[in-house]
Amino acid sequence: MRTSARRITLASALVGTLVLGAASSYAVTSGLTGTGDATRHDGDQTRQVRSEIRQGPARNVILLIGDGMGDSEITIARNYQYGAAGELPGIDALPLTGQYTTYALDPSNGLPDYVTDSAASGTGWATGTKTYNGAISVDLDGNSHATILELAKKAGLRTGNVSTAEIQDATPAVLMSHVATRGCKSPSGMDACEAQKIENGGPGSITEQTLATRPDVVLGGGARYFAETATAGEYAGMTLMDQATERGFNVVTDAAALESVQAADQDAPLLGVFAPSHLPTVWNGPLATPTGGSEPAVTCEENPAHTADIPTVEAMTTKAIDVLDDRHARKGFFLQVEGASIDKQDHAANPCAQLGENVDFDHAVRAAMDFAERDGNTLVVVSADHGHTSQIVYPGITTPGLTRTLTTADGQPMTIAYGTAAQGHSQTHTGTQVRIAGYGPGAANVVGLTDQTDLFFTMKNALGLDKKHGHGWWPWGR
Amino acid sequence: MRTSARRITLASALVGTLVLGAASSYAVTSGLTGTGDATRHDGDQTRQVRSEIRQGPARNVILLIGDGMGDSEITIARNYQYGAAGELPGIDALPLTGQYTTYALDPSNGLPDYVTDSAASGTGWATGTKTYNGAISVDLDGNSHATILELAKKAGLRTGNVSTAEIQDATPAVLMSHVATRGCKSPSGMDACEAQKIENGGPGSITEQTLATRPDVVLGGGARYFAETATAGEYAGMTLMDQATERGFNVVTDAAALESVQAADQDAPLLGVFAPSHLPTVWNGPLATPTGGSEPAVTCEENPAHTADIPTVEAMTTKAIDVLDDRHARKGFFLQVEGASIDKQDHAANPCAQLGENVDFDHAVRAAMDFAERDGNTLVVVSADHGHTSQIVYPGITTPGLTRTLTTADGQPMTIAYGTAAQGHSQTHTGTQVRIAGYGPGAANVVGLTDQTDLFFTMKNALGLDKKHGHGWWPWGR
Repeated sequence: MRTSARRITLASALVGTLVLGAASSYAVTSGLTGTGDATRHDGDQTRQVRSEIRQGPARNVILLIGDGMGDSEITIARNYQYGAAGELPGIDALPLTGQYTTYALDPSNGLPDYVTDSAASGTGWATGTKTYNGAISVDLDGNSHATILELAKKAGLRTGNVSTAEIQDATPAVLMSHVATRGCKSPSGMDACEAQKIENGGPGSITEQTLATRPDVVLGGGARYFAETATAGEYAGMTLMDQATERGFNVVTDAAALESVQAADQDAPLLGVFAPSHLPTVWNGPLATPTGGSEPAVTCEENPAHTADIPTVEAMTTKAIDVLDDRHARKGFFLQVEGASIDKQDHAANPCAQLGENVDFDHAVRAAMDFAERDGNTLVVVSADHGHTSQIVYPGITTPGLTRTLTTADGQPMTIAYGTAAQGHSQTHTGTQVRIAGYGPGAANVVGLTDQTDLFFTMKNALGLDKKHGHGWWPWGR
Repeated sequence: MRTSARRITLASALVGTLVLGAASSYAVTSGLTGTGDATRHDGDQTRQVRSEIRQGPARNVILLIGDGMGDSEITIARNYQYGAAGELPGIDALPLTGQYTTYALDPSNGLPDYVTDSAASGTGWATGTKTYNGAISVDLDGNSHATILELAKKAGLRTGNVSTAEIQDATPAVLMSHVATRGCKSPSGMDACEAQKIENGGPGSITEQTLATRPDVVLGGGARYFAETATAGEYAGMTLMDQATERGFNVVTDAAALESVQAADQDAPLLGVFAPSHLPTVWNGPLATPTGGSEPAVTCEENPAHTADIPTVEAMTTKAIDVLDDRHARKGFFLQVEGASIDKQDHAANPCAQLGENVDFDHAVRAAMDFAERDGNTLVVVSADHGHTSQIVYPGITTPGLTRTLTTADGQPMTIAYGTAAQGHSQTHTGTQVRIAGYGPGAANVVGLTDQTDLFFTMKNALGLDKKHGHGWWPWGR
């Protein structure tokens, strides 16, 4: 019982002291040693949980994806920044939780492939369709499937898409484009996407499809792709950035310009591109190494590369919500926010950068929750696209893989192990089921065991996007 | 949508076929390739989830602990036995789910120790008190705390304790005994437990305390400790097994004898001891090795050491429920069931033995759920005591640690990696938050983020064990 929001009466505090007796020497230090000291509930929460079960529809949906943010990654971030008994202000605040399965499909036979990448995973939650690793909202036969963002836009809702990665990276891309493989980000990278080439009558690269899909708000990195020149079609010979301007996008490239934006809509969609590639991480620190776990514990440092002109994911999220929310409009909005570099730094076996991105992503979740709590008519869902490598192990041990020991907010050593790839190689995704959490109308659909593809229908139905089948609230034909 | 219990109408099946189009070649094989094919819900589940939120109290509580059964271990078992799109009939059937934190305390300063063992973890859920690794229901100062089993028994409820490990192992021990460290299982092993020695006026070893605590049902392994002789006290010179008989226990040592038991109560408590140490695993297979992941995929085999005279955990659970449940009695019961060797085989990097134990444990969960669904007044909670090492990685990869590739129920390869210890050494627990799931009155208390110590209060309050503080349903003084 440590968070300030919790009710602690003087009487009960005194009782606690008396009951603790000889343990009080520890209680002074940590307050965790007595019976009941470490509980997170104040009492029976049956009534409170029931009150959180709210039938849809919702006016708005905000989906926040922590890339690679499995339960282990969440725990690492919490332990480091808030202590083991603390709470992540955003992620831990969502009242309804469950687990979902994330497997992809093997393109050779249509059967499960137990470890997904962000592309197949994203296609799952964005379209309700399982597919092969690398696929961007196309199925095993290469057919495109409408995404939740496209359906929302078609229904007249405002739409937004935010990432700390390149906006052409898999997670944001699955909402705005359909290509055979995730590498087809720009005109120069279309070798594996013949069917999508403009020269072949296709819709073009992920960047070009992003402009055509035209969400009201797109924020992230990836400027290097916008510097390329279209090779065919209406905008041949023009850079993709010039094309964006030509097509009416309000292009911003730094935090101050983003902050000054007052509106975004189909007349002038907001396109924020804040780095050549992915946004730099907010924190940094020493990599895990073969002997790092037994070296002196370190604390994480701010990453100087994350300069003040680059907006945080919280700033991007807040701005996106500000411009997408219009309570005078007939329709609500759909917004996706990705904390991308939890995954990328898990790959890199960089615990400080990884958990810093998780803590930073949590601020974006908190901003979304703040809005949703005020709004009262917004479904917020927080999940991951897949699990990842990092594990908390006994302090200071050496493993066959890589380790690093950090000093947490508790002042205690926490050793993080990365064991799926050798030093200098990329740690890999894992196939574990991951946490999904929800708040608001329709959030009960995350409770228990679901699959990633259920999330598409949960969001689609919360937004009431498909009533035509006449099956009532849940529209698809079963 | 693969389980037979799900509603599939002819009309919707036809629609599915038409919509799938070219994907039908895959659909024939797997049925997972079309939009919505992989969902686990039939539709909006808001109403269903709400109906599962039931206020306590409950007549009975059944707690099932999968030792080391993190989300990764659950997913491995599901993928192997039922396929990635399948369901574990027991574990996946609990409707309300959440995550809980499992950290222990550092005895040097009372601050968090991020990776718990089963003893500190068990003390947490059994007594609501955080403690140091190795502690059996004593706190950092060595003070004993009443366990949920002891409180239930004191209040007149029947009690049971089942494990596939030695009944002196940490998880069952935390309910029935209080010793300074988990190794103090028998008179010969008390060197680290001076205060508990009978010679020093203490209550004796875990085995001796088990007999004194006298639950109505205790089932598991650990016969080797019962063969020892008491060194002091009333039963000095007598083996602990003779002591059990002397004290009125109905001792059984094989599956047939267990099956024939008709009743168990304080006049004749049931003590089943079915192996010298832990019960053998139900399945076996090749260990993970430095190159195992790239070797041909294997399938798991039954373990011949698990002979017919050794009861399964399902059989032990069913018998325990049968004899503990007495609807004519004024009071209900508390029962704990541990699937112990998920953990032990994760330590051993033996994926088949590990997941076999998980599948077998799931049968016990199913048995508990079958009873609870019939009874209508039983809280069932399923969780783990901590996470563990095993991870699902890309098929066939080599990691710095150990790997093994299995052929699953899908007919697909699944590679399991163990990366926290070198070959021949014990893989380690991890500090991740783990899944907790509930069904029945009071089950809403598992939803969202809790700590392991909350579970003690959830069970205690479900059973109405402490009303004296006058705070209504949730009794402790805050």
